[in-house]
Amino acid sequence: MASRLVEFYERIAKDLDRTMDFWLKHSHDETYGGFFNCLSKDGKVYDRLKHVWLQARQIWTYCRLYNEVDRFRRQDILEAALKGMNFLQKYAKDPQTWKCHLVLTEEGKAVKTQRSIFSECFYLMALSEMGRASGEKTYMIEALQMMEKIVHWVREDDTDLGRPAMEGAVPTSSLAVPMMLLCLIDQLESVDPTLETKYRDLTGWCLTEVKKHVQRDGTVILENVSPDGEELPGCMGRLMLPGHSIEAGWFLLQYAITKGNDDVKKMAIDKFILNPFHYGWDQTHGGLMYFLDVDNWSPTQLEWDMKLWWAHNEALIAFLMVYKETGDTKMIDIFAKIFDYSYSHFVDEENGEWYGYLNRNGEISMDFKGGPWKGCFHVPRYQMMCEKMLKELAK
Amino acid sequence: MASRLVEFYERIAKDLDRTMDFWLKHSHDETYGGFFNCLSKDGKVYDRLKHVWLQARQIWTYCRLYNEVDRFRRQDILEAALKGMNFLQKYAKDPQTWKCHLVLTEEGKAVKTQRSIFSECFYLMALSEMGRASGEKTYMIEALQMMEKIVHWVREDDTDLGRPAMEGAVPTSSLAVPMMLLCLIDQLESVDPTLETKYRDLTGWCLTEVKKHVQRDGTVILENVSPDGEELPGCMGRLMLPGHSIEAGWFLLQYAITKGNDDVKKMAIDKFILNPFHYGWDQTHGGLMYFLDVDNWSPTQLEWDMKLWWAHNEALIAFLMVYKETGDTKMIDIFAKIFDYSYSHFVDEENGEWYGYLNRNGEISMDFKGGPWKGCFHVPRYQMMCEKMLKELAK
Repeated sequence: MASRLVEFYERIAKDLDRTMDFWLKHSHDETYGGFFNCLSKDGKVYDRLKHVWLQARQIWTYCRLYNEVDRFRRQDILEAALKGMNFLQKYAKDPQTWKCHLVLTEEGKAVKTQRSIFSECFYLMALSEMGRASGEKTYMIEALQMMEKIVHWVREDDTDLGRPAMEGAVPTSSLAVPMMLLCLIDQLESVDPTLETKYRDLTGWCLTEVKKHVQRDGTVILENVSPDGEELPGCMGRLMLPGHSIEAGWFLLQYAITKGNDDVKKMAIDKFILNPFHYGWDQTHGGLMYFLDVDNWSPTQLEWDMKLWWAHNEALIAFLMVYKETGDTKMIDIFAKIFDYSYSHFVDEENGEWYGYLNRNGEISMDFKGGPWKGCFHVPRYQMMCEKMLKELAK
Repeated sequence: MASRLVEFYERIAKDLDRTMDFWLKHSHDETYGGFFNCLSKDGKVYDRLKHVWLQARQIWTYCRLYNEVDRFRRQDILEAALKGMNFLQKYAKDPQTWKCHLVLTEEGKAVKTQRSIFSECFYLMALSEMGRASGEKTYMIEALQMMEKIVHWVREDDTDLGRPAMEGAVPTSSLAVPMMLLCLIDQLESVDPTLETKYRDLTGWCLTEVKKHVQRDGTVILENVSPDGEELPGCMGRLMLPGHSIEAGWFLLQYAITKGNDDVKKMAIDKFILNPFHYGWDQTHGGLMYFLDVDNWSPTQLEWDMKLWWAHNEALIAFLMVYKETGDTKMIDIFAKIFDYSYSHFVDEENGEWYGYLNRNGEISMDFKGGPWKGCFHVPRYQMMCEKMLKELAK
């Protein structure tokens, strides 16, 4: 396997270069700032709408690369990120409520707003990483203010989000929320480590919330549970997203490594990474299934059996992190399995970036590189994280 | 082909019996009234939520069968429909605004409301057909009041729908709206023909709106156009739904036949039925594609290349209607092609009803018979309409 580690490193580093070439070359809007995120296989703009999650994530990616990977510490990358940040600061956020929109026109007019916290979370991540890249204090100040807002919406009062109170809506704890907050805390502390004390209580709350999703004697992760950590009725209660559980797994593992918390480490590896990989991997065709029902009813989501790029990016990060932490060679074998599937199905060596959406049997179903929910984020985050881990492993 | 007409008739009649057995046996909620609409392949309830579109459509189907097909003029069918109607009248509609919810709990508590007019439209259809079945005047009175509300929301002021005004949202004329209204007018006039005068102006407006969607020298139907009938930018503007265009086609053809309007008849057949069938039929695997992009960009909807049951139901109705009207044998050949595909892929002769969702290559992707968007409607409506047309053709 030692020779494969070298191979992984070389192919991933090259793949990162190709990916960033793709976005740097095709996505910049020189007229209004921001990025075109609907790009065809070879980088043509097929829709000029700007999706806020993806705008913010592209800024984060540019700044993180600038901050952490020597060959990307380039003025043109920082400047493109700044142009994107200016665009978002000007148009994405309602200055009164701090709610952010979901979709903007190319000029920045609001097209759609979502009644959740995720546009705001990615906006915060962009601000915070930009603060680090630019050295300019105002970004981090705004990021911390946005964090107050988000925590208020999640833990105290979500009236601002505009969700109508429905009598029959079952109170639900969704895995996405504490997982996202853990990610934000990690982001803010990575810029300012003194924030640890400030967010200690919130971190504890997130961990308690996340643990509620470990169900059925620890064998499965359910996306939605009751606030008491009980199973919910119906399809919603039985829903599993293996790729999402695995992503939560490496967030938790990273936290556990940083803080030296062995219980969380064990839970992250066994419950959030290994189990979901085993029940999520398609034994017939390969690749990770998207949605599953814990009792094996047919899921009702049309995309349940598709293979999506991001789940594979997250699984690659997770298994390399587990291998690096434990030295267990079974983990690098699983990494290799996911790597081989991904590089024979998702990767476009000719044009750069990954295809995003495969049929169950591995054929490309939609061949665009950027779309309403796919931008410059999961692929380069995986590439930069794995490149770094593999470099450290080589030492 | 004469022998095939007999075969079609016999198989469809038998299929209708099997379909209705399925719903009559598995879907009735004897405790709260209404119907369980999330049913597995063999009729087991896998989610107890009640989806209002499907509740209303099941009432309509029961009543239409009771009203028009002798062997279904049964007291138990009328009573089940009445129980469903009572449930909806009690729980689906906000008594102040007349907005209807989208999803209810099994007891009738509201779970979700949609900011559009479709729950209300199907509620109206149920009321109106129930009025005819029960002979009770109050249903039709409520249906006509609901019609006033819907027309007000569509043509005058949609504030009640609760859609926020977005600066960047492009004014759009969606094919679904005038098509739905045409269907409602036909429904109401089928119960009370004297309404024709009342709705003459509205019918004219619907036809004008529908015609705007015929684009590119009459070769394609676009789902979304500007209020002036111009193409819109981006994915939304390029979107085609062949099955939906064909459904609109038979609505228009039925209208044209009733009113003796040859221009509308020609438009319905050539532009709304034949063209979309030709560009929508998958030449490789058979079946109708779900979403297409008029300029052949990759659609961004995950389900674009799936084969959905309802598109095939609508196409079967459309081509049999065209054949019956024109006598053109090419039309019954197309009907036969869709029929053969459907009966070798969608139909479950063992358990009754049709599977709803196939992969592009025709494999069953999700094997439930009822789900959040599939209930007792498209399949039996196709069966009763085609059974009737085939009986008339045999004469």
